[in-house]
Amino acid sequence: MDLTSLHLGGIQLHSMKRLTLCIDCSDEPGLIARVTGVLHRHGGNIVENGEYVDPESRRFFMRTAVEDVKDPDLLLRVLKTELPEIATIRLQDPSNKRVMLMATREPHCLGDLLIRAAYGDLPMDVCGVIANHEDMRSLTESFGVPFHFCSHEGRSRDEHEVQVGKILDEVKPDLIVMAKYMRILSTDFIRRYPNRILNIHHSFLPAFIGANPYRQAWERGVKIIGATAHFASENLDEGPIIAQDVTPVSHHHRPKEMARNGRDVEKRVLARAVRLVLEDRVVVTGNKTVLFE
Amino acid sequence: MDLTSLHLGGIQLHSMKRLTLCIDCSDEPGLIARVTGVLHRHGGNIVENGEYVDPESRRFFMRTAVEDVKDPDLLLRVLKTELPEIATIRLQDPSNKRVMLMATREPHCLGDLLIRAAYGDLPMDVCGVIANHEDMRSLTESFGVPFHFCSHEGRSRDEHEVQVGKILDEVKPDLIVMAKYMRILSTDFIRRYPNRILNIHHSFLPAFIGANPYRQAWERGVKIIGATAHFASENLDEGPIIAQDVTPVSHHHRPKEMARNGRDVEKRVLARAVRLVLEDRVVVTGNKTVLFE
Amino acid sequence: MDLTSLHLGGIQLHSMKRLTLCIDCSDEPGLIARVTGVLHRHGGNIVENGEYVDPESRRFFMRTAVEDVKDPDLLLRVLKTELPEIATIRLQDPSNKRVMLMATREPHCLGDLLIRAAYGDLPMDVCGVIANHEDMRSLTESFGVPFHFCSHEGRSRDEHEVQVGKILDEVKPDLIVMAKYMRILSTDFIRRYPNRILNIHHSFLPAFIGANPYRQAWERGVKIIGATAHFASENLDEGPIIAQDVTPVSHHHRPKEMARNGRDVEKRVLARAVRLVLEDRVVVTGNKTVLFE
Amino acid sequence: MDLTSLHLGGIQLHSMKRLTLCIDCSDEPGLIARVTGVLHRHGGNIVENGEYVDPESRRFFMRTAVEDVKDPDLLLRVLKTELPEIATIRLQDPSNKRVMLMATREPHCLGDLLIRAAYGDLPMDVCGVIANHEDMRSLTESFGVPFHFCSHEGRSRDEHEVQVGKILDEVKPDLIVMAKYMRILSTDFIRRYPNRILNIHHSFLPAFIGANPYRQAWERGVKIIGATAHFASENLDEGPIIAQDVTPVSHHHRPKEMARNGRDVEKRVLARAVRLVLEDRVVVTGNKTVLFE
Repeated sequence: MDLTSLHLGGIQLHSMKRLTLCIDCSDEPGLIARVTGVLHRHGGNIVENGEYVDPESRRFFMRTAVEDVKDPDLLLRVLKTELPEIATIRLQDPSNKRVMLMATREPHCLGDLLIRAAYGDLPMDVCGVIANHEDMRSLTESFGVPFHFCSHEGRSRDEHEVQVGKILDEVKPDLIVMAKYMRILSTDFIRRYPNRILNIHHSFLPAFIGANPYRQAWERGVKIIGATAHFASENLDEGPIIAQDVTPVSHHHRPKEMARNGRDVEKRVLARAVRLVLEDRVVVTGNKTVLFE
Repeated sequence: MDLTSLHLGGIQLHSMKRLTLCIDCSDEPGLIARVTGVLHRHGGNIVENGEYVDPESRRFFMRTAVEDVKDPDLLLRVLKTELPEIATIRLQDPSNKRVMLMATREPHCLGDLLIRAAYGDLPMDVCGVIANHEDMRSLTESFGVPFHFCSHEGRSRDEHEVQVGKILDEVKPDLIVMAKYMRILSTDFIRRYPNRILNIHHSFLPAFIGANPYRQAWERGVKIIGATAHFASENLDEGPIIAQDVTPVSHHHRPKEMARNGRDVEKRVLARAVRLVLEDRVVVTGNKTVLFE
Repeated sequence: MDLTSLHLGGIQLHSMKRLTLCIDCSDEPGLIARVTGVLHRHGGNIVENGEYVDPESRRFFMRTAVEDVKDPDLLLRVLKTELPEIATIRLQDPSNKRVMLMATREPHCLGDLLIRAAYGDLPMDVCGVIANHEDMRSLTESFGVPFHFCSHEGRSRDEHEVQVGKILDEVKPDLIVMAKYMRILSTDFIRRYPNRILNIHHSFLPAFIGANPYRQAWERGVKIIGATAHFASENLDEGPIIAQDVTPVSHHHRPKEMARNGRDVEKRVLARAVRLVLEDRVVVTGNKTVLFE
Repeated sequence: MDLTSLHLGGIQLHSMKRLTLCIDCSDEPGLIARVTGVLHRHGGNIVENGEYVDPESRRFFMRTAVEDVKDPDLLLRVLKTELPEIATIRLQDPSNKRVMLMATREPHCLGDLLIRAAYGDLPMDVCGVIANHEDMRSLTESFGVPFHFCSHEGRSRDEHEVQVGKILDEVKPDLIVMAKYMRILSTDFIRRYPNRILNIHHSFLPAFIGANPYRQAWERGVKIIGATAHFASENLDEGPIIAQDVTPVSHHHRPKEMARNGRDVEKRVLARAVRLVLEDRVVVTGNKTVLFE
């Protein structure tokens, strides 16, 4: 969105820093009026706005991009007094997030994200790549990004994850993106990064959960294949879905050609999900996501 | 949306009638806060909400679906005092709109809309079909809908439009949908129904404006064809676009096969545009539309 | 395809009747040369041609649309001597096939097929509609099509299927299309019509097999829903897939809105599958289909 | 396609080198029988086959992927005696083609092609990148690919093209791919490489020909934007179209966001077109392409 010309609900005097306000609280009457009222009184100019109430949990979610807020800290404090006690309120500036990528042997998702980061297409700084094979080292390092080789061979799952965890503890990324990382992470590991590990699964979930989804798709004789970006959760391939897309196939496609065509879908679905998360547009509620687009 | 379980910003006591509030005014600070504040004080429970500021015209557009408003007339009066003088405010109930369909000889769009209306898929009552050929009479009448045959043969354009206009004057439809009506209407005629005549053009506008778009597409050798639903405007095929969609074609498709495949796109694009308009989700600004989806 | 101007491999003297040749036999060297050689010697002008060898079964499939064959019976006899003993050879003229539709209470697929048949968009004569509810009677009869009400209430599955079977025995349709027929047919019943019963399932199979797929989709939080047309087989929802398509959904879609949007996908996927089958473009091999498009 | 298991019309004894046979000649009866007969007598095992007759030019096109040909040179000589005098026959092995990329300042198409080439996703060797800006040097060189900076500044069009032409004369690429090369090439230049220069245009041609297509799209208020890969021809943006694809946009998208989303479409459309051309699946007839997929 062009900050210098688009806004909502207020004349824009000059282009100040944009902040994103995310609210998550139990629903009650008048919340939109209260939040937008507070924003207005603090000089905030709303440039994007979205709300959602989860019909099951009765929770209210709101995402507002706002400019010209005079005193963000004061705004936050006032909002907290206006909203229900258990509200979660985040006010974030749009500076680049720090992202750790994880890979195994395939370059399509990893390379796509590295290029996007290097040329400013995605608001992220890639602070490193962790891989359980050496194959992606040269691609990674050609972008000036540190490559951490964590072999799983000769190591137990626990030992391997301790090694990976150490790197994450040092780097402290805001987000971890598994760009075709083909090792299964333990429940304990995933629990340490709730809704912060993004994964791409090479099928149209929940179809073809598990190993070799393209072979499964070929065996079933489907006419469309897909890919699914989701948060990693304790149950493999069952975390909250962020983005999905598909591509047609025919009887001419064997698993190998399905995999080839599928890679293009994986790549664009993962990039889309990463963008949504980096722009604070994704809220998790239960095992689903709300996307403020 | 499930009225009994989904809402935003307020506990829902019982399912009252839903109203749609549409606002169009010059932009100024705090509009969202003011509108949602008024709604809250009048008992209104917001179940859907969308805003937009046109960066060119600096106009503010807002669409809010609201339930439980105690006194809609009072709400409207109060809103008018709160908003800029030149605001357009409409508060509409979701009852079926009255729609006149216009057709020539093809059944695909007409039949699709008649079935959707007959079985409650679209919130409209079809109050008649005007056609310049007799071909669609039996299809129309099988749905119990009056069929008005207005031949253009042996008549000047003016005479023909006078005849069509008489029927419209009597029936007074809320909306006129040209479901593959293949006569060009005069500027004078169209001006009488501003943003109330919906048309489907059988190309991906602005490609292939004018006659025989499928032949044009075939001659150009495109790999995708499309359809465009738009409001009829003074310049043919140049009115505000509401919906577009496409379908792939190959060198095997001659104009005849393009037309056949294209009909399926026309049908679904027109139905989608009609739904958006009937649900008050379409605002025209300049020569563009804003869709509150 | 425009018969008067498009052909392959031979000057077209005049537009003779087009025939479709379908071959299914064990693979061996030189089959294409042999078949096209025989066709050429019998005056046949190939206007469309496709081949496929199933890598698992080693069976060879060929579909050829041919014009100007002087003596079709002789052609068939000669082909039989040229091909492996176990070849299946069919030479079909493109006259309309006789189709029985089955429905329950929803009009979208049924009405779409009735309109397409009535106006020549699909090469079929609808010889009747069998339904287990009365709801679709008036829609069916408005197209001059016989409506057979076969209630399942107060009847065992067997009794109900006997009743349905009687109608099919009398009418002897070439194809049976379940246009949202919501009763499960027994294995015995389905076995009587191998690869002749077409069904539309309202999910992107194999995701959401079974009942209430839209509710399942909503519970899983998918971002895309779909529909699948397939031949009915002994295992419910597991027959050979003919066509699939999808449409995006968001967190705003509850099961009800998913069902509404999904109906548009069901309708177009079913129509596409029916067209492919009517044009002899679908071959079943194992539990998959080969589509000659 | 999996060479070791899929073939047509003949038992496969062992996996020999695959060849692609492309034929372009005036149409006459029995061509398919003649070609497949010759192939069979020379041991050729057909693994893929496609034919097309252009209804306007009456020319016959055939593409056959064949394995196990004993003596390719002999096969070619025999085919020439069997086909009309003016036939063009090419028999190509599937070794990588040599490709020169051209770029200006954007990395999305260029980087995507460099990664695909580096990791064997596309059958090409990138023999260099020619660019009229320095921006893409480091990306290019990180893949070990020579970067040729040909500034257009202070040079006439002719002088600039002489410089570019010199590099091409030395490198002699099989194919030139303009991966967002934003300079217009002269007719003379393009004529030297007929159907060998591939371009990506950032609109759904023929809509929005010329400069700033995303701005044009925004001004027209379209709901879908697209990209078009085509052969460069004497008339800018009017060459034979190879591939097109689209992505939805809304009123929220300004030209800047359209460009951002459009880049993802450009990238995948160009990669798809490059693959088709590299695999000898594209035939130009008049100003259109035939795709053997």
